[in-house]
Amino acid sequence: MADRVVILGGGFAGLAVAGGLKHAAVEILIIDRQNHHLFQPLLYQVATGGLSPEDIAVPIRHVFRRQKNVKVLQAEIKGVDREAKLVQTSVGQVPYDVLVVATGSEYNYFGNDVWKKNAPSLKAIDDATRMRDQVLRAFEAAEFETDSSRRKRLLTFVIVGAGPTGVELAGALAELSHKAIRGEFRNFDPASAEIILVEAGPRILGVFSEKLSEKAQKALHQLGVKVITGSAVEALDDSGVTLKGRRIEAGSIFWAAGVRATSVASKLGVETDRSGRVKVGPDLSLPEDSSVFVVGDAACFLDAGGRALPAVAPVAKQQGQHVARVIKSRLEGKNSPAFKYVDKGNLATVGRRFAVADVLGLRLAGLLAWWIWVVVHIFYLIDFKNRILVMTQWIWYYLTFHRGRRVISDAKPDST
Amino acid sequence: MADRVVILGGGFAGLAVAGGLKHAAVEILIIDRQNHHLFQPLLYQVATGGLSPEDIAVPIRHVFRRQKNVKVLQAEIKGVDREAKLVQTSVGQVPYDVLVVATGSEYNYFGNDVWKKNAPSLKAIDDATRMRDQVLRAFEAAEFETDSSRRKRLLTFVIVGAGPTGVELAGALAELSHKAIRGEFRNFDPASAEIILVEAGPRILGVFSEKLSEKAQKALHQLGVKVITGSAVEALDDSGVTLKGRRIEAGSIFWAAGVRATSVASKLGVETDRSGRVKVGPDLSLPEDSSVFVVGDAACFLDAGGRALPAVAPVAKQQGQHVARVIKSRLEGKNSPAFKYVDKGNLATVGRRFAVADVLGLRLAGLLAWWIWVVVHIFYLIDFKNRILVMTQWIWYYLTFHRGRRVISDAKPDST
Repeated sequence: MADRVVILGGGFAGLAVAGGLKHAAVEILIIDRQNHHLFQPLLYQVATGGLSPEDIAVPIRHVFRRQKNVKVLQAEIKGVDREAKLVQTSVGQVPYDVLVVATGSEYNYFGNDVWKKNAPSLKAIDDATRMRDQVLRAFEAAEFETDSSRRKRLLTFVIVGAGPTGVELAGALAELSHKAIRGEFRNFDPASAEIILVEAGPRILGVFSEKLSEKAQKALHQLGVKVITGSAVEALDDSGVTLKGRRIEAGSIFWAAGVRATSVASKLGVETDRSGRVKVGPDLSLPEDSSVFVVGDAACFLDAGGRALPAVAPVAKQQGQHVARVIKSRLEGKNSPAFKYVDKGNLATVGRRFAVADVLGLRLAGLLAWWIWVVVHIFYLIDFKNRILVMTQWIWYYLTFHRGRRVISDAKPDST
Repeated sequence: MADRVVILGGGFAGLAVAGGLKHAAVEILIIDRQNHHLFQPLLYQVATGGLSPEDIAVPIRHVFRRQKNVKVLQAEIKGVDREAKLVQTSVGQVPYDVLVVATGSEYNYFGNDVWKKNAPSLKAIDDATRMRDQVLRAFEAAEFETDSSRRKRLLTFVIVGAGPTGVELAGALAELSHKAIRGEFRNFDPASAEIILVEAGPRILGVFSEKLSEKAQKALHQLGVKVITGSAVEALDDSGVTLKGRRIEAGSIFWAAGVRATSVASKLGVETDRSGRVKVGPDLSLPEDSSVFVVGDAACFLDAGGRALPAVAPVAKQQGQHVARVIKSRLEGKNSPAFKYVDKGNLATVGRRFAVADVLGLRLAGLLAWWIWVVVHIFYLIDFKNRILVMTQWIWYYLTFHRGRRVISDAKPDST
């Protein structure tokens, strides 16, 4: 009987493993809580009304409809029994010969998990539609709020964390309020909304060069985003956020400050780092159990300089492809090759005509970098259909500034 | 001060009233539970993965962004005080000089409201995404169901009511299971799913001629839909439906059998018919209170033959336009004109290449009727952007049979 490869998670890493085993004599089972692969880098566009959830999600089984050695199971992972080589799921036990843990990450509240309620983050489709609901409801409420300080609070949006996600979310929120919905309200000007980006570190977009991060900050400023650096959050509640010696009243706070591995990684019974990531060997398998691989955001892989690789899509994808190669090598009785990350650089966009790019040795800021961003993102959108549709929408959006995907999905308008 | 026109409901009727008063010296307030106008006739496409919710919804305030005499309030209607000319909402009281009730309809379970839980219907965005979740989850569960009778039940979908909505939903479900997702499952063939359309009356699509309804039934049959006519539902629970002397085990039952006015209409303190609709005079205002109009599905307007007009979009739209004319006539001190419905006919589609059309005296069945259906629906999609996007998707869908908008939005895969 063929080796049974069980992959936990249908993100970039999990899909790369399965895809890389297309012609291998294995039986593959992908288990995911969701029925869809999600193109997470564009989730902020859903949260700000630029794209539909369905534009960036594709059913996992649709991706593999022609790869007959892949089965897909929608279930929760309850645990892993490495002794018996079993995965416990919400719908029963699943045996494996090779296990690939590609369960990704969640946002890290650094010991303040109670903040999550008042400062949600963006990881899944439902997070994005809830965030969109919250933003749109704030404007709806502001239209009929007569108390000026309450209205000001409703219209203050704080984003914590100025990595690519925080920066992109801040830029999109600024465009939504300062441009897209201007003219739709009668009792206030949406352009009066304050978008505040808070960063604990000394500058935004820490992974980029100082010069690029400066240029990005300037671009954010031009969009009307207020940037506060060197300020960690000390407290946070439903009416605002407290920085060192400073209080900001805000109706909406969104969290984009660092990630940790999901709890599935901790169920393997092996050592994890303080971000909950599992330490893996050179071939991405566990040092103590070569039948288990960990890849992507769930893995702690040290590069030549002894630094852990970042939790980004390219790392996940390359690690997934590598694990497929290792599995095939083993089937052929060969040695496992060691993983080596090829860093192609970083990209982050600020609004609709500006991005910073640090790719292949080039450091760019502005419109050209933005076009690189557009091409790269469209290229990576897995499903061909989605690629065309997203492009249509982006062209339309570029021409008109409209953000029309502004459905408030759950009708509970209260007087809060 | 200008007359204050308050419109309850941002459906086809409400939008037509507001749009018709564009150049009138009135202040308009539209109150709706949702922030968006919904193109209800295409809701079944969302429920079956063909379109995104956002494709058929547009924020009401976006529609009126350039019409400065319109304000929009998202709130629930709690009551109407006709004495004091006040509307009570979830966010406070609103005074009116003229009130237009355009609150539409909901599905009628004819005294069996407990059936609603096990046989949901399609009226709002959330209904459609929940129905989509239910359908997609049934296929996910069937993939790992080993008991053949339980699998058969999971894969049996019953639609109650064979008016246009029921017929269109049945056709789309058949295309989804028998065509779009074929090849995506490994343990069963989705084409084995049974779609059963149940109708209490003697034939499907009762508003069409007998010949057209026969042709539509044939087209449904070719798509693999089983049609049962002359069978009212006697009982219904979470495992199936009981018709006269016959039990069908079904994991999913959807209700599309007749509508009644929403409860708002009953808050006016005037006479309603047995479908909860408010009886209106020749100009669509209340016989007992000329400052209150009722239009669309909420109104009972008798035509020359003494029959109530049907609950369809064209009636709502024409009545809305008429009320705008009446309000303007009154402002000019003229008499109220009487409403007269111009019936342009009926359309219903069965799958992706067949429709029946009874328009302008022409009775068509087949591809040409389907093209008429496509053109009419795209034409009526209010927002230009949506029009282009929906068209792109339809062309893609027509060419490929794909139904890619298949996100299961809420991750709770249980072993049920």
